[in-house]
Amino acid sequence: MVKVAVLGYGTVGSGIVEVIKTNQDMVNKKAGDEVDVKYILDLRDFPGDPYEQLVVHDVDTILNDEEVAVICEAMGGVEPAYTFSKKALLAGKSVCTSNKELVAKHGPELIHIAKEHKCNYLFEASVGGGIPIIRPINASLTPEKIDAVTGILNGTTNYILTKMEKEGSDFAEVLKEAQEKGYAERNPEADVEGYDACRKIAILSSLVYGKNVDYEDIYTEGITKITTTDFKYAKKMGYTIKLLAKSKCVDDKYFAYVYPCMINKENPLFSVNDVFNAVLIHGNTLGNTMYYGKGAGKLPTASAVVSDVIDCVKHLGKNIFCFWEEEKLELSNMEESRSQFFVRVKDDATAAEAAFGKGTIVDAGIAGEVGFITPLMSEKDFQVAAANVDMISRIHLEA
Amino acid sequence: MVKVAVLGYGTVGSGIVEVIKTNQDMVNKKAGDEVDVKYILDLRDFPGDPYEQLVVHDVDTILNDEEVAVICEAMGGVEPAYTFSKKALLAGKSVCTSNKELVAKHGPELIHIAKEHKCNYLFEASVGGGIPIIRPINASLTPEKIDAVTGILNGTTNYILTKMEKEGSDFAEVLKEAQEKGYAERNPEADVEGYDACRKIAILSSLVYGKNVDYEDIYTEGITKITTTDFKYAKKMGYTIKLLAKSKCVDDKYFAYVYPCMINKENPLFSVNDVFNAVLIHGNTLGNTMYYGKGAGKLPTASAVVSDVIDCVKHLGKNIFCFWEEEKLELSNMEESRSQFFVRVKDDATAAEAAFGKGTIVDAGIAGEVGFITPLMSEKDFQVAAANVDMISRIHLEA
Repeated sequence: MVKVAVLGYGTVGSGIVEVIKTNQDMVNKKAGDEVDVKYILDLRDFPGDPYEQLVVHDVDTILNDEEVAVICEAMGGVEPAYTFSKKALLAGKSVCTSNKELVAKHGPELIHIAKEHKCNYLFEASVGGGIPIIRPINASLTPEKIDAVTGILNGTTNYILTKMEKEGSDFAEVLKEAQEKGYAERNPEADVEGYDACRKIAILSSLVYGKNVDYEDIYTEGITKITTTDFKYAKKMGYTIKLLAKSKCVDDKYFAYVYPCMINKENPLFSVNDVFNAVLIHGNTLGNTMYYGKGAGKLPTASAVVSDVIDCVKHLGKNIFCFWEEEKLELSNMEESRSQFFVRVKDDATAAEAAFGKGTIVDAGIAGEVGFITPLMSEKDFQVAAANVDMISRIHLEA
Repeated sequence: MVKVAVLGYGTVGSGIVEVIKTNQDMVNKKAGDEVDVKYILDLRDFPGDPYEQLVVHDVDTILNDEEVAVICEAMGGVEPAYTFSKKALLAGKSVCTSNKELVAKHGPELIHIAKEHKCNYLFEASVGGGIPIIRPINASLTPEKIDAVTGILNGTTNYILTKMEKEGSDFAEVLKEAQEKGYAERNPEADVEGYDACRKIAILSSLVYGKNVDYEDIYTEGITKITTTDFKYAKKMGYTIKLLAKSKCVDDKYFAYVYPCMINKENPLFSVNDVFNAVLIHGNTLGNTMYYGKGAGKLPTASAVVSDVIDCVKHLGKNIFCFWEEEKLELSNMEESRSQFFVRVKDDATAAEAAFGKGTIVDAGIAGEVGFITPLMSEKDFQVAAANVDMISRIHLEA
């Protein structure tokens, strides 16, 4: 029997206990051993909870118990999760987590400690919730030289954008509704400004390129400026607008960014709607593969953590390969990144064509303005050209 | 250094050598060892081929060489692939294959032999080509009780259906064009009659339910009867027609089938077009996840085989968990399976409503007939009711 402890008895933590208990026979079968939750760490008590007797308040009870082999960290935030995880790994206990902030900030260090102590630091649930994406990168796409990763990695913003598109409502209105439904936080900044997606693409990029991508280096633009008028143009063009978190390697230069982007029906991400997430990965011999599912939610996220627990139990005393070096991956300046742009300009497209070169004019019937799709150009060239245009707004565009 | 042999130097076999050579540094890094192709088995010689000196004609050269630890079987068909694979596994050599016929027919036996001889029989490439799907089922969705697997598992038929939808061409015309382009075989029966998809859903179902699903037990209906008129109705309804390969567990009864099905935009498989494949898996705590990519093609398929080679090298002398017992999974009779149906009936829907109960009438402007969507009903009840209706055709429908 393998003893497990769960740190944090909130949404994900209680979900982890629920998934293990609900699917106990499956968990044991796949782990090849009995998996038993021995402790739940939380500052609170949970009178009446079926597992109230497992609750402890002092992490040392868990860290000092030699019987505990696997710890699920579901506390969120960097501290004290970082300190607890590090202590656990140093004691040879494997740690499984859904904590994207911690993984993005201290992932390579914790992975390194796990390796040295013949245990594992696994984080399948930190990106894409229940979607298997970390393990496919580490164990399935192994022969591939991956040159692009593109994700819809934040369910809240995808829900908002989907609503804006389908119902023609504006951002503020949909955000308010999402908050009332519990799909958006009362302080929605981390989601709508793209910070959450930024941490997730940092994690995925570090794994596929093998070196550490610092999330603070990633150009990040949220969805707060997207309007119903932008969606009118998108519809006219057969496009939609998604918050993409992307990294790519072009001519040995690495780029990473989060921004709203117009994409068309040819893109497999086009029909990823509502709170769903998806990750599109391009490899040199495989081409595109995509992974789709629920990017958040109690049980899907917990299921991913439990899949890590099972992997840890199968590999007790052995380290599972993970290529994420502490060495920093230098990202190239966004100015050098090439893309198409959709711009809305005042009056007509004469100045836009003169400035950006030959593009496509889009008339969505909006008075006093017109849409224009630029040719493929660098961010820098775009900025220079845009200075000569009476521009209302711009959005990146991928054909 | 780990020595590998490739059996069969056709499309997939030569692709395997190409992927290993092209991405040699990545392959070695992920395998944690140098991976080297020592032999290529083929009846033919390949003068001028860069690897012609590796070609041997006698399988015993490979089977008797103790240095060879991993064999890629890319011969296709049941024999002699079965005999060669069995001998290799009995000699403790791992076997990786893209051979769906062989895996569907003898999978559990070969898995069992591999287990007994501390090696592995892996077959990621046998379903969904380059899409990681076998390993996610075996290693990622581990805590889940999976109750449904639905796939678009045949690229040829998906290409044909996509063309029929987009261009309004009829089946025979598109098939001819697909044959000219090399997307369909000269003898297209295995694809268009659903036999290929049937073997693949047998493999996936065996893995998710843990017992052997005999592909001969699976109800299989191809796409040869689908017409442009069917697509006119589908379009009118906001649906499309896909060849689905599906298995499900309902009230402890298991069903598996391959048939053309109308699906709508809410289904993630709706926008899987052309030669792409996708697999949608539903788990009890995770909900839906989907895996998408190129279901065939030289390099994508080869990449999946090489990912298996890497896994074998990482696990030399150790068996990787795979739950596929030799015990047979009893499938319930299709008559008991419940579904909605889209039927085309002569004249008007009066008789259809009287026979099937309250449904939805669909007028696509076709003279002398009308479309009708039945309520959810069993196949058996459908057959009984259909006897009272002047029916032109029927297609299953999933809401």
